[in-house]
Amino acid sequence: MSYYDEHRDQFLEGLFEFLRIPSISTLPEHAGDVLGAAAFVENALRGAGLEHVEQIRGGGNPLVYGDWLGAPGKPTLLLYGHYDVQPPDPLDEWHSPPFEPTVRGDNLYARGACDDKGQTYILIKAVEGFLRTRGSLPVNVRFLIEGEEEVGGGHIASFVAGRPQRLAADSALICDTEMFAPELPTLCVGLRGIVYGELHVTGARTDLHSGVYGGAAPNPLHATAEILCALKDHEGRIRIPGFHDRIRPPSQAERAAWARLPFDEAQYRDQEMGASELVGEPEFPLFERLWARPTLEVHGIRGGFTGEGAKTVIPARAVAKLSMRLVADQRPEEAVEQLQRAVSKACPRGVAAAFHPIHSAAPSLVDPENPFLQAAARAMEDIFGTPTVYTRSGGSIPIVGLFQVHLGIPSVLMGFGLPDDNLHAPNEKFYLPNFFRGILAVARYLERLATP
Amino acid sequence: MSYYDEHRDQFLEGLFEFLRIPSISTLPEHAGDVLGAAAFVENALRGAGLEHVEQIRGGGNPLVYGDWLGAPGKPTLLLYGHYDVQPPDPLDEWHSPPFEPTVRGDNLYARGACDDKGQTYILIKAVEGFLRTRGSLPVNVRFLIEGEEEVGGGHIASFVAGRPQRLAADSALICDTEMFAPELPTLCVGLRGIVYGELHVTGARTDLHSGVYGGAAPNPLHATAEILCALKDHEGRIRIPGFHDRIRPPSQAERAAWARLPFDEAQYRDQEMGASELVGEPEFPLFERLWARPTLEVHGIRGGFTGEGAKTVIPARAVAKLSMRLVADQRPEEAVEQLQRAVSKACPRGVAAAFHPIHSAAPSLVDPENPFLQAAARAMEDIFGTPTVYTRSGGSIPIVGLFQVHLGIPSVLMGFGLPDDNLHAPNEKFYLPNFFRGILAVARYLERLATP
Repeated sequence: MSYYDEHRDQFLEGLFEFLRIPSISTLPEHAGDVLGAAAFVENALRGAGLEHVEQIRGGGNPLVYGDWLGAPGKPTLLLYGHYDVQPPDPLDEWHSPPFEPTVRGDNLYARGACDDKGQTYILIKAVEGFLRTRGSLPVNVRFLIEGEEEVGGGHIASFVAGRPQRLAADSALICDTEMFAPELPTLCVGLRGIVYGELHVTGARTDLHSGVYGGAAPNPLHATAEILCALKDHEGRIRIPGFHDRIRPPSQAERAAWARLPFDEAQYRDQEMGASELVGEPEFPLFERLWARPTLEVHGIRGGFTGEGAKTVIPARAVAKLSMRLVADQRPEEAVEQLQRAVSKACPRGVAAAFHPIHSAAPSLVDPENPFLQAAARAMEDIFGTPTVYTRSGGSIPIVGLFQVHLGIPSVLMGFGLPDDNLHAPNEKFYLPNFFRGILAVARYLERLATP
Repeated sequence: MSYYDEHRDQFLEGLFEFLRIPSISTLPEHAGDVLGAAAFVENALRGAGLEHVEQIRGGGNPLVYGDWLGAPGKPTLLLYGHYDVQPPDPLDEWHSPPFEPTVRGDNLYARGACDDKGQTYILIKAVEGFLRTRGSLPVNVRFLIEGEEEVGGGHIASFVAGRPQRLAADSALICDTEMFAPELPTLCVGLRGIVYGELHVTGARTDLHSGVYGGAAPNPLHATAEILCALKDHEGRIRIPGFHDRIRPPSQAERAAWARLPFDEAQYRDQEMGASELVGEPEFPLFERLWARPTLEVHGIRGGFTGEGAKTVIPARAVAKLSMRLVADQRPEEAVEQLQRAVSKACPRGVAAAFHPIHSAAPSLVDPENPFLQAAARAMEDIFGTPTVYTRSGGSIPIVGLFQVHLGIPSVLMGFGLPDDNLHAPNEKFYLPNFFRGILAVARYLERLATP
C-alpha cells in the first residue's frame, strides 16, 4: 500500500482545498459555497476512479453519488459522508481563520477539518489507493455524500426513503465519529437521536416600556426561562411526562466495559471542556449520561434588546432554540408531542407558547456481533496495533436510522476524530496522524471484507 | 396669548426638524446625531430669546443650558428635558419610518415624539411666547436639557452634583410623563427608581457540541433561566431576601384616589397592551403594582446561536440584560448588593454568575401639598377645564432624585403624553392636541407662579 505513503502531501493539499470552501449549510448566504463543495466532491470521486459519478439534485443541496461495482460475489458497501459544515461563530475565538486550513503541530485547524470533510476525504482516498494501483477494489462500493447533515435537511432522507437501486448494499460505512482516545481504535455502536426546534413565546402586541408597564405586562423572555426550568430541573433531570418510558438501559456488560475505558475525568473536565464541574443527572455515571440518556438543551434565545448599553423594554416575543437528544428506543414524533404538551402545561399566564420542530432523527444501536462491525474492529486493530473498543456517541447521525429503516442495512461507524477536536466550536481540528491512519484502516477494512 | 395660536404651524415644523435627528444615545454609531440634536436645542433656546445659551461639554453628551433671570424677587424654575431617544428596533413594526415624523389623524408618529423631544419642545415654546411678545417672563427660568437620559449617562449627574450657581432654583419643572387619560390633567408625584445591568453567566471554555457533551456540560443559557426563575417566581413575586424591607406603602388616601381614577382595564389590556392577561403580584391592585411595587424584568438574553436554522451548540457564556424598578424608600446600591447575593445563591453548579450594574436611579415621591405642585395643578385645570389628578409613574427619571439630593428642590412633573404613546416601542406617537395644550399649560404655570 505504498501509494498511501507516497501521496500524503497530495492528500493534504486536496483536503486543504476542500476545507477552504465555507459550505455552511445553515446560512443561506453560503448556498453558493455549498454547491462549490458538492462540485469538489464530485471531482474528487471522479479523480479517485469511481464510476457513474454525478450530483443528484432535487429538494435541497445536491447528493453526490459515485460507485465501483466490479467485484461480483463480494459485499457492497455504502460509503457515507457530508460536505457541509457548521457555522464558525464566535469568529473571534479562532486562532486561525476557520476557512484557511492551518497546521499547528500534529493538528490541522479548520471548520470541517474533522466534521466531516476530513473524514469524508478518508473514504475517497482509501478507495483511490486501490483503483489507482490495482484498477479494482476488493469489494463493491457506492458513495453517497450529502450536504445537509448539519441542518437535518430532508434531501437525503427522501432519496433514501425511495429505496433506489443505486443504494442497494449490504452495510454502510460512515466516518463521522471519534476515537475514544488518540491511540485507541474505536467503533461507535450507538448514536443518540435528536429533535431540534424552536420554542415561540408571545406576550403583548408590541415591545413595552418596562417602567410604564412593568408589574402588569407579561414578559415572554421570563416566561421562556420559566418553561425551560419546568422542562429540566436544577439537577439536569428532564421533567416531561412519559418522556423516559421507552428508554432501553445499557446492558450490565456494556456498562462494565464503559467503566473500564481509559479515562481521566479531571483532564476531560479541565482541559477538554474547561468547565469547573461536570453536570447532569447525578444518579447516572458520565458515559451513561453522554451516550444512553436523553438531553434537553437550549442553544440560543432571541428577543428584546441585546446590544450594547441599556434598553428598558419588555419584549413582545421570544424564541428559544431547543433540542432534545434521544436514546434507543425513544421515538422523535412521540418526544415532540410530549414536549409540546409539557410546554403548554408550563406556560405562565399572559403569554402563549408553542414548540415547533425543525428536524429530527431517530436514535440507533447496532449489535456488537454484526460481521461488518467485527471486520472493521479487526481492520482498525491491524493499523493501530491495539484492540478496538466499542463505545456509543452522544451525537446524532440521522442517516444511520434512515439506512436501517429504509435500506435494511446496519452502519459501521469507524471514526477517526478525537474528543478534543472542538466540533461545532471555534478551533475545530483534525489530528493528522489519524487522517493518514484512517485512510489505511478503511483500505484494510475493504480487504478484510473480501476475505472473511 | 395669541402668539401660541398663531405659531402652531411653526411649532410643528420645528418639532419635525428635531424629530428627524436619530439621536439614539445607546448606539455609538449615532454619536454624531446626538451632537446634532444638542445643537438643535442650543439654537432653539437662542431662537426663543434665552440668554447665556451654551453647550456644557464634559464627560458625556453635551448638556444644553440657557436662562432668563430678569424677574427679581420671583421664583426661579429649572426646566428639564432630554434630546436623546431610545433605539427604534424592531424596525419592521413601524408603520412609518421612526425618524420621519408623520401625522396620522390627531397623532404625530416618530421616535421621541413624546419621549422626550415633543415635551422638551413644549417648554421651549412656552417660554418663547413670553419673550417674543412681552420681552420678559413672569418668573426666572434656567433650561437644562440633557442627552443621556435613555442610557443613564453620568454627565448631568456629575454636573448637578457639583451644585453649580447656574442651577440655583426654587423648583424644577419636567415634562417627561403622561396624563392619566386624554382629557385628564395629571401631575405625577412619584417615580420608580431603577437598577439596570447585566447578568453574566459562564460555563465551559468554548461553545460545545450538544451531542458530544450534552449530559455533562453546563449550559449557561439554561443556568440564566434558572437564576431568573429563582429571582422572580411564577406569580411575579421577587424572591430576593431583604429586597422589600424598605418599601413605603401608599397611604390609604392615595390608594383610594387611585381606585377612583377613570380606568377601563379591558381596554388597557386589549387595546393598549394587546395582551391576553395582566400579570404581576396577584395580591396587589394594578396601580399599586405599576407605581408602588418594584419589578425585576429581563430585557434580552445573548449567547449561543439565534440565527436562522439549526446549530447544536451548548454556549460557553450568556449575558442577560436585567433591570429592577425600585419604589420609595428602596436604595439602588442596597438593591444591587441584594441582587448580587441572590444571584450567587441561585447559581447552579458548573457555571459562574455575576450581576454587573450599568446605571441606577433612586425612586422619588413629592408631597402633594407642595406649593409649586399646587400652582401647576391649577394651571393645568385652567387650560384643560377639569380638575387635575395626582398619580405616580412606574418609569424612572433619575434627574428628579438628583435635583432633590443635590439642589434641594422638588420637581413638578407636568406630563402631556398619553398611556398609548408606545414609549420605547415601535410607533411612538404624541397626541397633537396635548402638544399645543401643553405649551399653554406651561405658560399658565409660569404666570400663576408670579401671582400666588
